Amino acid sequence: MSDLPKFVTIQEEGPREGFQIESGPISTADKVRLIEALAETGLKKIDCVSWVNPARVPGMADAEEVARAIRRKPGVAYTGLWLNAAGFRRALKQPLDLIGSLIVPCSETFNLKNVGKTIEEAFEDQAATLHLYRDNKVDVRWATVFTAFGCNYEGEIALSTVVDRCTRLLDIAKDQGVKIQGLYLADTVGWANPNAIQQRVGALRERWPDMRIGLHLHDTRGTGLPNALAALQMGVDQFDSSCAGLGGCPFAAHKGAAGNICTEDFVFMCHEMGIETGIDLDRMIECALMAEEIVGHPLPGKVMKGGSLMRMRNKSTH
Amino acid sequence: MSDLPKFVTIQEEGPREGFQIESGPISTADKVRLIEALAETGLKKIDCVSWVNPARVPGMADAEEVARAIRRKPGVAYTGLWLNAAGFRRALKQPLDLIGSLIVPCSETFNLKNVGKTIEEAFEDQAATLHLYRDNKVDVRWATVFTAFGCNYEGEIALSTVVDRCTRLLDIAKDQGVKIQGLYLADTVGWANPNAIQQRVGALRERWPDMRIGLHLHDTRGTGLPNALAALQMGVDQFDSSCAGLGGCPFAAHKGAAGNICTEDFVFMCHEMGIETGIDLDRMIECALMAEEIVGHPLPGKVMKGGSLMRMRNKSTH
Repeated sequence: MSDLPKFVTIQEEGPREGFQIESGPISTADKVRLIEALAETGLKKIDCVSWVNPARVPGMADAEEVARAIRRKPGVAYTGLWLNAAGFRRALKQPLDLIGSLIVPCSETFNLKNVGKTIEEAFEDQAATLHLYRDNKVDVRWATVFTAFGCNYEGEIALSTVVDRCTRLLDIAKDQGVKIQGLYLADTVGWANPNAIQQRVGALRERWPDMRIGLHLHDTRGTGLPNALAALQMGVDQFDSSCAGLGGCPFAAHKGAAGNICTEDFVFMCHEMGIETGIDLDRMIECALMAEEIVGHPLPGKVMKGGSLMRMRNKSTH
Repeated sequence: MSDLPKFVTIQEEGPREGFQIESGPISTADKVRLIEALAETGLKKIDCVSWVNPARVPGMADAEEVARAIRRKPGVAYTGLWLNAAGFRRALKQPLDLIGSLIVPCSETFNLKNVGKTIEEAFEDQAATLHLYRDNKVDVRWATVFTAFGCNYEGEIALSTVVDRCTRLLDIAKDQGVKIQGLYLADTVGWANPNAIQQRVGALRERWPDMRIGLHLHDTRGTGLPNALAALQMGVDQFDSSCAGLGGCPFAAHKGAAGNICTEDFVFMCHEMGIETGIDLDRMIECALMAEEIVGHPLPGKVMKGGSLMRMRNKSTH
């Protein structure tokens, strides 16, 4: 395990991924309370809201109110997600941190069903978006490829497709003189396994040795943390995760079926393996318990129930 | 990942680990129904009951009834757990498969609190037990060391302690001319992490290159499957697991805090990595759903909610 990174950067996705899918209405005050608590854990980037159609995602109808209410802690980036220029223009008006990404899917069918666009149209959009970011002085950091492991409509995604998407995104950035810091792969619908992680990360690393690699993993089938482990073993040091495992299918949220990997469980695993995260695990566990209280049903995180070992170690050394 | 085994043997612990801790009474008929369904999945060994004090573990008061009611499938071993000679004598009278193990803890405090015996007394018991097994023609297969990674009373367990326990158990067996097929490490209270797994498995492998190694892992803090992955990467091919993740603390069972690694999630991961288990994943998922229905509350297994990819693949290839 000699390639393990010394430090892993974690982007918290819980407020956005979680609150956009919870069927019960979550009050703006509760959302803000969790976001502010998360900012006290040592996290440096928290994805707070989605600028999406409130008719389709009613849980995000108060995105503006949430964005305005957060008491910001210096040094923490409070971000949001948009899927098109209209969403981006809403985001521009709010006091959040705007960080641009290039993003395309691997699966055309997935994209057609979700936003009605072909892969070619997705690439055209990205070129246009990059202009928009430049005009608005928005920093662009990552080129993200989603459904990068498999798709419920198209099945397995070929490695060559992933490499093609990355290549074309980097070309678009290069054409416009934009420097991308790394490549993000998203296992949007939970198809990854440890072998596939190592194969894809290895292929990207070989082709673009100077690019950082980040992973957005869903724990749809229990392999979320094993997949993260496989990536850590290859030196990957950038991950998205979700406090308490918030997220997943809105119609089965109480079963904890399909959220991102759980932040505090991932932090626990990293710390136990000697990998730093900059995050206070006990505070993160308190956030997870708060998230569970806010949504009003059990969330899938484990360490918030099992407890951190640091406390046990302290107890057992007296 | 070149050391991955081609085939992994899984011992199902769900009926025993799960039903002994569920607070709601589970009917004998339901227990038998799940055990019989599990036997149809391809599992070759199912731990069905504990022969323990019904005053302390009321959920196992019907162990005799369960043992007698099972319609046995040829080729499947239906086993039970006993903790002392009295339990073994109860087991002897039932139509289950008796497989003996040598078993000692690493943590003396844990043992004193749980069964009131020192480590020395535990070793003396093992020597006596081995006589009992021989007298009753009971096969002895594994030398098991529990609390092998850490203990809530004693904290971290040193590797040298694990090696000491294994050495002494193997010596006891050798003294009595009993051949042990392998060493089992149990992470009884969820202290393991992938580094510790690799360190311990590596040390045992180096010292006893011909011994098989097995792992009994609890998913107390979300690292159960990552720990299993770390072991697979070292070629470990023998694991305990629990259907739907049944098990855990009786007072927090609905939260799924601390059961064994989940059988169908582990099977899913193995199959996705090209490792065979001999288990029909779809049938195992049906068992997990049955287990959830029987206990009447959500269980922590993921793939039973996310669904197997085989079905998705079949759907997506038309």
